[in-house]
Amino acid sequence: MNGPAAPTPSALAALRPLPLTAVRLDPAGLLGGWQERNASATLPHCIDQLTTYGNLANLRRVTGDSDAAFAGMWFADTDVYKTLEAIAWEAGRTGETPEFFVDTAALVEKAQDEDGYVNSYYQVDHRDEQWTDLGFSHEMYSAGHLIQAAVAAARAADAPQLVTVARKFADLLVRKFGPGGTDVIDGHPEVETALVELYRLTGHRPYLDLAKRFLDLRGYGRLGQGRFGSRYWQDHQPLLETDEAAGHAVRQMYLLAGAVDVAVELHDAELLAAAERLWESALASKTYLTGGQGSRHKDEGFGDPYELSPDRAYAETCAAIGSFQLAWRLLLATGKARYADEMERLLYNGIAGSTAVDGRSFFYSNPLQLRTGHDGSHEDTPSQRLTWYSCACCPPNLARFFASVQNCVATGSSSSLELHLYAPGAYAAGAVKLDVRTAYPWDERIDIRVTGAPDEQWTLALRVPAWCQDARLTVNGSVVRGGAEDGYLRISRTWKAGDTVSLVLAMPARTVAAHPRVDAVRGSAALARGPVVYCLEHSDLPGDLPFEDLELDAAAPLSVVEHSLAPVAILTTLRLRAETSDALYRPLTPDRPGTTAVTVPAIPYFLWANRAPGPMRVWIPLAAREE
Amino acid sequence: MNGPAAPTPSALAALRPLPLTAVRLDPAGLLGGWQERNASATLPHCIDQLTTYGNLANLRRVTGDSDAAFAGMWFADTDVYKTLEAIAWEAGRTGETPEFFVDTAALVEKAQDEDGYVNSYYQVDHRDEQWTDLGFSHEMYSAGHLIQAAVAAARAADAPQLVTVARKFADLLVRKFGPGGTDVIDGHPEVETALVELYRLTGHRPYLDLAKRFLDLRGYGRLGQGRFGSRYWQDHQPLLETDEAAGHAVRQMYLLAGAVDVAVELHDAELLAAAERLWESALASKTYLTGGQGSRHKDEGFGDPYELSPDRAYAETCAAIGSFQLAWRLLLATGKARYADEMERLLYNGIAGSTAVDGRSFFYSNPLQLRTGHDGSHEDTPSQRLTWYSCACCPPNLARFFASVQNCVATGSSSSLELHLYAPGAYAAGAVKLDVRTAYPWDERIDIRVTGAPDEQWTLALRVPAWCQDARLTVNGSVVRGGAEDGYLRISRTWKAGDTVSLVLAMPARTVAAHPRVDAVRGSAALARGPVVYCLEHSDLPGDLPFEDLELDAAAPLSVVEHSLAPVAILTTLRLRAETSDALYRPLTPDRPGTTAVTVPAIPYFLWANRAPGPMRVWIPLAAREE
Repeated sequence: MNGPAAPTPSALAALRPLPLTAVRLDPAGLLGGWQERNASATLPHCIDQLTTYGNLANLRRVTGDSDAAFAGMWFADTDVYKTLEAIAWEAGRTGETPEFFVDTAALVEKAQDEDGYVNSYYQVDHRDEQWTDLGFSHEMYSAGHLIQAAVAAARAADAPQLVTVARKFADLLVRKFGPGGTDVIDGHPEVETALVELYRLTGHRPYLDLAKRFLDLRGYGRLGQGRFGSRYWQDHQPLLETDEAAGHAVRQMYLLAGAVDVAVELHDAELLAAAERLWESALASKTYLTGGQGSRHKDEGFGDPYELSPDRAYAETCAAIGSFQLAWRLLLATGKARYADEMERLLYNGIAGSTAVDGRSFFYSNPLQLRTGHDGSHEDTPSQRLTWYSCACCPPNLARFFASVQNCVATGSSSSLELHLYAPGAYAAGAVKLDVRTAYPWDERIDIRVTGAPDEQWTLALRVPAWCQDARLTVNGSVVRGGAEDGYLRISRTWKAGDTVSLVLAMPARTVAAHPRVDAVRGSAALARGPVVYCLEHSDLPGDLPFEDLELDAAAPLSVVEHSLAPVAILTTLRLRAETSDALYRPLTPDRPGTTAVTVPAIPYFLWANRAPGPMRVWIPLAAREE
Repeated sequence: MNGPAAPTPSALAALRPLPLTAVRLDPAGLLGGWQERNASATLPHCIDQLTTYGNLANLRRVTGDSDAAFAGMWFADTDVYKTLEAIAWEAGRTGETPEFFVDTAALVEKAQDEDGYVNSYYQVDHRDEQWTDLGFSHEMYSAGHLIQAAVAAARAADAPQLVTVARKFADLLVRKFGPGGTDVIDGHPEVETALVELYRLTGHRPYLDLAKRFLDLRGYGRLGQGRFGSRYWQDHQPLLETDEAAGHAVRQMYLLAGAVDVAVELHDAELLAAAERLWESALASKTYLTGGQGSRHKDEGFGDPYELSPDRAYAETCAAIGSFQLAWRLLLATGKARYADEMERLLYNGIAGSTAVDGRSFFYSNPLQLRTGHDGSHEDTPSQRLTWYSCACCPPNLARFFASVQNCVATGSSSSLELHLYAPGAYAAGAVKLDVRTAYPWDERIDIRVTGAPDEQWTLALRVPAWCQDARLTVNGSVVRGGAEDGYLRISRTWKAGDTVSLVLAMPARTVAAHPRVDAVRGSAALARGPVVYCLEHSDLPGDLPFEDLELDAAAPLSVVEHSLAPVAILTTLRLRAETSDALYRPLTPDRPGTTAVTVPAIPYFLWANRAPGPMRVWIPLAAREE
């Protein structure tokens, strides 16, 4: 049983995903807990909202079972499909396919046109506009999410009905836009990766070829300038000739995920290299400390290089999920630890911060700073997570992500098991069985117990994150010398049940600086520990101290303390700057305002905005050094 | 002959504008040169574009003289009205009313409905939508610009025909929306100030009352949430209860200008105080060093307090013009020098920078920084000024501004003449005649010669800008002791023809810092001299030095030099930072990278982007101090 993004056996792959059920996360761990919360809170919430916001009624209009007005965005169907996909992955985890899934799949089937088309916006009021506005219509984006739901259903939920519907739509795409058809692309990439996944499921080659064709057709300005220029939808330059991640961040990530899928199936090294190159460019100058991407609200786009203002970080949740999906694909294709590093950073920061502790409200954009006096009155920049959005792409995207995230924790082959993310649980890959115990990322120690092993040598590979300067490994109590190679500690032996491995990834609290070209955080530093980025939040300030006048004393020690929101907060003594002037602009003087000391805990960024609304910041101004 | 914003004799006013023709700027001066360029280049360019972009054809569709499709924004008529207004003010300056004005006024008259309505978007294809979407329709905004063009025509161009058209429309507004009519407001303020001006021209009180009514009706959420919340169009709180400038910057400025107009005519001190309070709030934490306002592209809005990122400064040209118009009205109402200070800052920075040296291309948004690698491929953030925009509000707004700017240079009464802005030219107010000679703002000396004077005592008041720490005054060669009072040096005497006054406003080049709460420019400083803000531009760098690694040495002396673009550039020795790592994020260390010295001239900000496209910055990172 495969999870999402499962290359075929003949695909180019340095690493192979495990079956979907190979990893059972312990709900007592952070990651397993999130997966449980997703199942018990987020998923039911999404299902409710599909009724509340009219998404299901939209489909019932097509079948003649509703006369309500069309509700929501013109691509509202995709919220249904992403929720179905999430349910399917969840069914793979628990073995139960809920009635809602079956009923809704039947509704989609009933709504489908004879020729395979489904899109409740265009099928009722806008028939004459079908396929006329591919830049913005999201028709193939919607088809892509339907296909992904169907693939998940077939792989995980024993519910193949939706595959018939998805294939019918995919076949329509092949007929209309395949070889000999119209040369078009969709303004929002997504169908590419979906078509490859459908090919992987069915073995039907035209789906793969169509995905490749869409990649080849992109980059020649076919979609025109639209509202934001052709870069917005990555149609400004062919992918193979591009050096820089640009435009709408989600589109860029989804496009690159599709490119990697095509590249590995076709052994297209040049295409894979392009995806890696663009990923590198994004990581080099267009990614927030949280892994978030996209600095601009206006076009939901990557900004210019080093344009990374924390307050206006758009850092859309879907872009972080897309970035994780891309990194996962690149990890499989290349085996490079840096992709797993990025998955980990995204997981504990850019993605985790999107969901409230109760699992029922979400951030769409994920800023790294909220100012005193912030206007949070509108959903464009709320001060707190909202239960839903007028464009509700993010919540169900989170649902499908968390429902299948255990699939990305480890990889394996007949002779190896690689642990990329550390989470407690039971791991089983063939005859290899492991029991992993850890309070990671709060605790630096990971204990692994072999509970089953074949009678031959195999390799356990353990990732040492780039943030870790001191990794200590013991096997059956004996210290293993020698550092990580290419980001992994590898132990090859004939393992026996009862063998124990203990990995300690030293994670002292640390201060982080940005490249001096990041103007927006000049003279500031951030706090981090292990993979977790921390932040200051107003609720932790004593009394009514002015949040905006806090400064970090680089010389003050950092310690860790328990906190009501998290097992580990970082405690340090900040300086409170005494303002001497209200003037917005004033002569530059060497005078340093006086400061007073105040001790404040910093909490994990992903837990901000779970108390009263108010200011927050990841990047803290540095106090002037005493001379 | 009045200029724009001329309070009635009974209005509350600390200062009185001079007649439109009282000041004749010398084209050899910077301000007079801009006015000439506006007349010879910008205005003809605007007139051409009204044909090229279909604005005139839109009106001809209404009269049945064109069967072209409607072109441009739904408020495209306003570009026509603003151009007509500009032509009218220009006619007041030169005495010539061009045929284009007469023909176009006749076209508007012909297009007008029987009941007074004119709007070429709604009159042909969208009849049934008239008055149905006041939040976004701009119907009253459009009426307002028609009225302002008509007022200008009546005052300056001896062309009263348009007044009949404007009154017919205004009378319709009074019937529909006046007392007893519907309680509505327009999403884009503008009609308020226009109605007061029409009242001032005609004495017809219902126009003033309707403007007051629109102010009273605002702030109760009548327009709904729209796309950006009710703050966007200042409908979230009644003006009298508001403390903070917020929402769409142009709308806020135009609304406040209308509020001051109403307040002074009705002697409404509370309303005037509200306008002053909101202006103060904007200046305290929401205004760029250039006077520009609006930090957000998404909703063209003010951001949160101290949210002033230089790279994403929206700082719309129209907001700067609106801010100038507001400051001018507040100056007249209160006589406070700070409003004239702000007019001066806007004039030489936020407004002047919008127009290219040839007068034929323009910035819509006016960033204070453009990065290396900037994507300037789209009109949303072009690297260079564009000849026109799909929403072309700014160019004709600049045209009407510059065509009438001489009206805001000075004020006067029977016993005083106040000089607020310094520009060479001939000034005549009643029997008082002055000849002003100066190369201001390049030179610090202003020479004034009295060429005519009445036989009684009157006061010459000379503004001392807040940036000036050392103002020296001589009258007939004798030094006058005593500093400025409330921002003005006042000399009361019985002046005689031949008397001379010399004012020296010392303007050494200086470094400017921002309030520490402005995160985006922390650890940076700007260069300025007199009222002019300077910037570094790539074209001035020797060889191919990396622009992004330049740092300002706060200890290095500043000197002034001539430059091909301007009489005065600021020369200083910068430090070029040697980068030791490409990592976007890295451990915070006290290490200081090495630097090398490089001498680069900074040019006036308003002259940037007149050479090859490339990076620019107003705020320069400060090099670490040597210890």
